[in-house]
Amino acid sequence: MQNYNVNIELSGDRFSVTYILSGEEDVARIIAKHICVEQTVEFPEELLPDGDIRRHIVGRIESFTALGHDKWKTEISFANETSGFELPQLLNNIFGNISLEPGIRVDNLSLSAKFLSCFRGPRFGREGIRTLVRVPHRPLLSTALKPMGLPPAELADLAYQFALGGIDIIKDDHGLANQPFSTWSERVHRCTEAVARANAQTGYSSIYMPNVTAPANVIEKFAYQAKSIGVGGLLIAPGLTGFDIVRQLASDANLRLPLMSHPAFLGSFVTDPFSGISHRVLFGQMMRLAGADATVYPNHGGRFSFTEDACRSIVEGATTPMGHIAPIFPTPGGGMTQERIPEMIKMYGREAIFLIGGGLFKGVGNITENSKRLLNVVTEACVNL
Amino acid sequence: MQNYNVNIELSGDRFSVTYILSGEEDVARIIAKHICVEQTVEFPEELLPDGDIRRHIVGRIESFTALGHDKWKTEISFANETSGFELPQLLNNIFGNISLEPGIRVDNLSLSAKFLSCFRGPRFGREGIRTLVRVPHRPLLSTALKPMGLPPAELADLAYQFALGGIDIIKDDHGLANQPFSTWSERVHRCTEAVARANAQTGYSSIYMPNVTAPANVIEKFAYQAKSIGVGGLLIAPGLTGFDIVRQLASDANLRLPLMSHPAFLGSFVTDPFSGISHRVLFGQMMRLAGADATVYPNHGGRFSFTEDACRSIVEGATTPMGHIAPIFPTPGGGMTQERIPEMIKMYGREAIFLIGGGLFKGVGNITENSKRLLNVVTEACVNL
Repeated sequence: MQNYNVNIELSGDRFSVTYILSGEEDVARIIAKHICVEQTVEFPEELLPDGDIRRHIVGRIESFTALGHDKWKTEISFANETSGFELPQLLNNIFGNISLEPGIRVDNLSLSAKFLSCFRGPRFGREGIRTLVRVPHRPLLSTALKPMGLPPAELADLAYQFALGGIDIIKDDHGLANQPFSTWSERVHRCTEAVARANAQTGYSSIYMPNVTAPANVIEKFAYQAKSIGVGGLLIAPGLTGFDIVRQLASDANLRLPLMSHPAFLGSFVTDPFSGISHRVLFGQMMRLAGADATVYPNHGGRFSFTEDACRSIVEGATTPMGHIAPIFPTPGGGMTQERIPEMIKMYGREAIFLIGGGLFKGVGNITENSKRLLNVVTEACVNL
Repeated sequence: MQNYNVNIELSGDRFSVTYILSGEEDVARIIAKHICVEQTVEFPEELLPDGDIRRHIVGRIESFTALGHDKWKTEISFANETSGFELPQLLNNIFGNISLEPGIRVDNLSLSAKFLSCFRGPRFGREGIRTLVRVPHRPLLSTALKPMGLPPAELADLAYQFALGGIDIIKDDHGLANQPFSTWSERVHRCTEAVARANAQTGYSSIYMPNVTAPANVIEKFAYQAKSIGVGGLLIAPGLTGFDIVRQLASDANLRLPLMSHPAFLGSFVTDPFSGISHRVLFGQMMRLAGADATVYPNHGGRFSFTEDACRSIVEGATTPMGHIAPIFPTPGGGMTQERIPEMIKMYGREAIFLIGGGLFKGVGNITENSKRLLNVVTEACVNL
């Protein structure tokens, strides 16, 4: 094979990935070269045919700089065509085989406007969701129906109480699937009806988002059923379903429902700070590229271990300019309470969805009263924003 | 809510997960309790309604033992019903939210025969694949078509040469998707034809497995197209597509093609030894439960960092008794060469697929000669097995 020349048509446009590498400089430089090969040709370099494969298909080190403490930052570019302009293969390019090696962390993605034009991204984005729930200015409020085990009628009653209290987005807890004690169809019918009934009383436009994290052959069917029942959006956990079904749902012109992504089963990508994928990329850029309109993650200081910096980087990934791809809502949750609101507003401003689950069950009042109080706190805290 | 009683029908059968926890004993005990709540009700325990939710839906600590060095092993059981008897929700039960916390590692799954009866598992298993390639005794040989960038005609020529040399399973490299320089459909047609042509000459029953790691709305279509073209199996990377599509393909009685799983994008689950999911569970039990018939992973001593122990544990997960679920083929690869064969046979015995990619391009002969030599080495080394 060494002796023949392969020429293929390539646009010359490339996407690039910034990786943080750990180790001494000579090792890190070897790893950078290794990424170029492993993420593309996976082939002994000396045996590659001459021509375009060697010149353009193998990844290219665009920069390599020291971060100190045996940490290095390298930007590696890949021909757009290696992705086939498809999300699963793009993820594979970025971190397929090298996910198997410790000491490599995906830090940032840089995709040209031209490349991004191959991806629809979120159909609604922040503005689309605001229009839907008719809340133009303040941060939105979301809560989760739980605990798992409650029958649909009880969950619907909770949904009704939350909606009466003015919670904008009432979603299934991500552990509500299609269990015998709460089947998907009955739950979605009842909760949708309950939220509509509350809206008729309050004049609000609260929406219900059922969980469609379901078997692969069921997700689309559930999404359409949910649409016909009259839900306001869908919750999905790409760690469990794959990222590409999010893209499929977001791209479907007949569906047109906002999508909220949940981080379940994705934590291992971020827990080791020197391996895996950065919070910014995973919960920001990737969710957005896939087409989520809101990205749920555990806020710092809650039940989970995300730092404040990690949360800020998610906001960055969810909102900084990215070609035609709309900014989406960071949706911090995971043990948040009403008491955290002033501080959350200080950190996130108005462009966020605050997800408060169990916290609304606590406190002095009933659920509707607690929800109303939360809404008041947020509304008042935003007057000066 | 505290004051009402929820009673739901549950079979009493429970599945259990063994977790390894890190930290001092009191912290580890708190984490164990936390897992019980977080992976089910996700709700302030003191506010749970009385009755079955508190008694049976919340996870239950079955054991908690010291491993030494601030490591602890705890077995936690969950009502089968919490999974909805569906794979995505089962994975969510096992490691959904707690994936977001370092210091928790899924070590083993224990599922009753009754629970397992809800899952088909692999359609072929080791024996089914052996029948297909007509190799009753020795380890099977597999290789990958690459490098990315070659046009379909060149890849088909490689497939032909490998098949002439007697390689049993010739698969797409996992980076071959549907790129403009090698479209999926043309590649699959040409490679299938090439392997059939070689079989007609040799009398062997080599099979070609194209990669169906594709957009969510395309995978099933590709699988059926591949079937009608005459392929012998399919390659898929569940880290990129989600695990459940593997189950869907394996369960499809009209498809009936063996499935080989690829580990791309899954490495972050295993790289930190004290967080994530064990090699045994991820590449053994989960792949098998999903329905893969062969599970690819990087062998120790190759281009990746898996230890020999990790590889042995994958074999364990892939083959130890698991209800009616058939044992599947461990498929070690990742930089293997002919020289490693005697040692690989010593470690794996005959019940494995040896995946040798780039290594077959090296050496003194051409690809067919190298493949023949490899087949001879394996056949001879197996005489005394």
